[in-house]
Amino acid sequence: MLRAALLGLTVAGATPDTLDAELQSLQAQAAKGTSAYAIVESLTTKVGARLAGTEAEARARAWAVEKFDELGFEARIEPATVEGWERGVEKATVTRPYPQALSITALGLSVATPKGGLEAPVLRVRSLDDLEARANAEVKGKIIFIDQSMARTQDGSGYGAVVRIRSRGPSTAARKGAQAVVIRSVGTDHHRFPHTGMLRYAEDAPAIPAAALSVPDAEQLSRILALSDDVRLRLELRPRRTGTRPTGNVVADLKGRTRPEEIVLIGAHLDSWDLGTGAIDDGAGVGIVMATLQLLRQMPQRPERTVRVVLFGAEEVGLVGAKAYAKTHADTLDQHVLAAESDFGAGPIYALSADVGEAAWPKIEDLHTRVQHLKVILGENGMGPGPDIYPLRGEGVPSLIPKQDGTDYFDVHHTADDTIDRIDPKNLDQNVAVYATLIWAVANTNGSYRPLAQDR
Amino acid sequence: MLRAALLGLTVAGATPDTLDAELQSLQAQAAKGTSAYAIVESLTTKVGARLAGTEAEARARAWAVEKFDELGFEARIEPATVEGWERGVEKATVTRPYPQALSITALGLSVATPKGGLEAPVLRVRSLDDLEARANAEVKGKIIFIDQSMARTQDGSGYGAVVRIRSRGPSTAARKGAQAVVIRSVGTDHHRFPHTGMLRYAEDAPAIPAAALSVPDAEQLSRILALSDDVRLRLELRPRRTGTRPTGNVVADLKGRTRPEEIVLIGAHLDSWDLGTGAIDDGAGVGIVMATLQLLRQMPQRPERTVRVVLFGAEEVGLVGAKAYAKTHADTLDQHVLAAESDFGAGPIYALSADVGEAAWPKIEDLHTRVQHLKVILGENGMGPGPDIYPLRGEGVPSLIPKQDGTDYFDVHHTADDTIDRIDPKNLDQNVAVYATLIWAVANTNGSYRPLAQDR
Repeated sequence: MLRAALLGLTVAGATPDTLDAELQSLQAQAAKGTSAYAIVESLTTKVGARLAGTEAEARARAWAVEKFDELGFEARIEPATVEGWERGVEKATVTRPYPQALSITALGLSVATPKGGLEAPVLRVRSLDDLEARANAEVKGKIIFIDQSMARTQDGSGYGAVVRIRSRGPSTAARKGAQAVVIRSVGTDHHRFPHTGMLRYAEDAPAIPAAALSVPDAEQLSRILALSDDVRLRLELRPRRTGTRPTGNVVADLKGRTRPEEIVLIGAHLDSWDLGTGAIDDGAGVGIVMATLQLLRQMPQRPERTVRVVLFGAEEVGLVGAKAYAKTHADTLDQHVLAAESDFGAGPIYALSADVGEAAWPKIEDLHTRVQHLKVILGENGMGPGPDIYPLRGEGVPSLIPKQDGTDYFDVHHTADDTIDRIDPKNLDQNVAVYATLIWAVANTNGSYRPLAQDR
Repeated sequence: MLRAALLGLTVAGATPDTLDAELQSLQAQAAKGTSAYAIVESLTTKVGARLAGTEAEARARAWAVEKFDELGFEARIEPATVEGWERGVEKATVTRPYPQALSITALGLSVATPKGGLEAPVLRVRSLDDLEARANAEVKGKIIFIDQSMARTQDGSGYGAVVRIRSRGPSTAARKGAQAVVIRSVGTDHHRFPHTGMLRYAEDAPAIPAAALSVPDAEQLSRILALSDDVRLRLELRPRRTGTRPTGNVVADLKGRTRPEEIVLIGAHLDSWDLGTGAIDDGAGVGIVMATLQLLRQMPQRPERTVRVVLFGAEEVGLVGAKAYAKTHADTLDQHVLAAESDFGAGPIYALSADVGEAAWPKIEDLHTRVQHLKVILGENGMGPGPDIYPLRGEGVPSLIPKQDGTDYFDVHHTADDTIDRIDPKNLDQNVAVYATLIWAVANTNGSYRPLAQDR
């Protein structure tokens, strides 16, 4: 506690010993088992898949309000809108030389092929760089198959290294005259589940249809290409834009006792892709932050600062809810002390990173001492926060970044296989213990974590 | 060798020492690597799924003839016919109280629902016995959900214990007035792949539509049923019968040198279900028996007896090819010395069982001594052979039963996930080493394995 005092972590209202006792009490409670798993189970059972802008996402908002009510919170829905997109028929068939069906799914926001599909020769490239290096004449009229594999890593860096084949591959191929793009799924599993995820059409390129093959199907197509120079694929994708649709964020506050205008925000996103039931992405995050709030509410008195939970809408299709939150709350963002999002699955937290002002880093080091016995190492400053925090970070809001073990995350990420049975409740409880500790400590101490470095 | 002589395992033409040397040579060859994996890869890449009676199964026969030709064998197609069945649209949707789609596939030979589907309340039962015990009034008009889970075992007994929910469940429910049946997939995995497989409609019951939910979807439906007494499912299955279609067996012989009329038969089945590419079921068996024949052919002289490979057609839909073989070859079945089928995936062989006359069991014990160092234990007499051998067994043909480790077999059996990447080539090589040893020994010794016990 001495060190904390030296670092300027002055405790308002409570003595250091009191805070210490409170944090121990929260951790003891979490160790007995939290409601996180039951919350994810309820969401994934009662709502299931909840694609942004659909009626299912609206039911998820209603579910959240009801669940918050059960937990003793009056939550509010902050409405927003999203440009809707829904999946339709999707088929890929090798028509020559070895006719067979492949397992495929459209990338999010892809345009459709003509009804009945399009058929074209296939050109395989190994990366976006490889594609860039090809002559336009080689690409023109073809279906481009981007066959880059993803490394399994703990921190998600394997995803970061290749995800641009999904986001930028379609427009890169379109600029060179390709008819369509199929990518090897950005995933680490070896099952016949294609991984969807959003693409980004560039303004200077035609929008062409784009889809992901499952990893075994990408390997199958590669084997076929190794046997023949004359491989043709028929691709039929019939997704459609559904126009402007409702989305929204669900917000619940544990009102601060002495400085209610100062907000410590923890979030997760409520929408999911349409293929699975969104258990690890991001039901887990919803369970973790709601269970954390429930735990904090059970303390004898409310925290000094307000703890706010935000369940963001329409994250998967472009951080739509997050941007709306930043806009709606523009006037109070300077009072947002710290923000964190849980959106990396259901693995345990193994490191505490942050994005705070340099002078505030010792406070993060001190926070770390509160959770290191939960098997959390100290991470680094200046890291990227959860996706929905980016719009806040752009406005100068510092972030807390509890890093989850994502070794298995990309096995089921954005697939039909993202279901509740992937989750070990004990890992969610560890997340809640870490979040509850960190957020209670931050909400019961003074001081700012600003300013963020300008160059990030 | 002394013991072999005492047991009457007289070696014709070759001295015991010669046979021993030949078997060691075969095993040394197999240890260097066999063609088994390359054969499976070729079949699953160039043909892929090959449902009985389809044009794809016909392509598989053509592939087999060509592959045998490459290996130096003139194979023949023995034509037969099968009543065709093909999958169509398949959808299951919980309509009340929590609307959502479930992952489902029609059971093989299922009749269709009306176009647009049928909708009914769901009644969950835990087994066929549980279903039998229900009053007709409770079952009538419902969709019966048979939710029995399968134990993981090495020898497939877990499958044997529950597969009747798939084969007999539909008619059992129909007799009580059910509208349709959905079962929990008969499988040991935990992925969203439903497992198909044949059902058997009884003559005394209406044929009702039947399908399998993936294991996670069966669990989801159970969770929903635990939360509500008013659960309704909409089921749309649109498979169709395609009439009488061609199938057939592909047969290749390594002609016996001195007693060509005596046949040692090893088989596998060429057809597969339509969802995966039939790598473990039964591409692996095809690879094992073809690679075995290739290995035997490379010996300095041909065996005494004829070694015959049969790639059976239309196994999955009722042993159609196997029955046709027994009929076509009825006149020579008494000259079939022993028969074996490899149809239990791509795991290593861990035991040698048989179905031979009691007096012949010591010969199996002797054969076992030839392979025990390949990590094969001695099994039992009177066991059931591979499925396509049953029609021969019914005519008194003894069986050799090399038992493969099937611990993981039912993870992907009859699913879309049955693909080449499930196979470890080393395990196939071990299978070939065992088959080559056993078959060469049998084909170069005298003596009969008959008569089979009458009561089996």
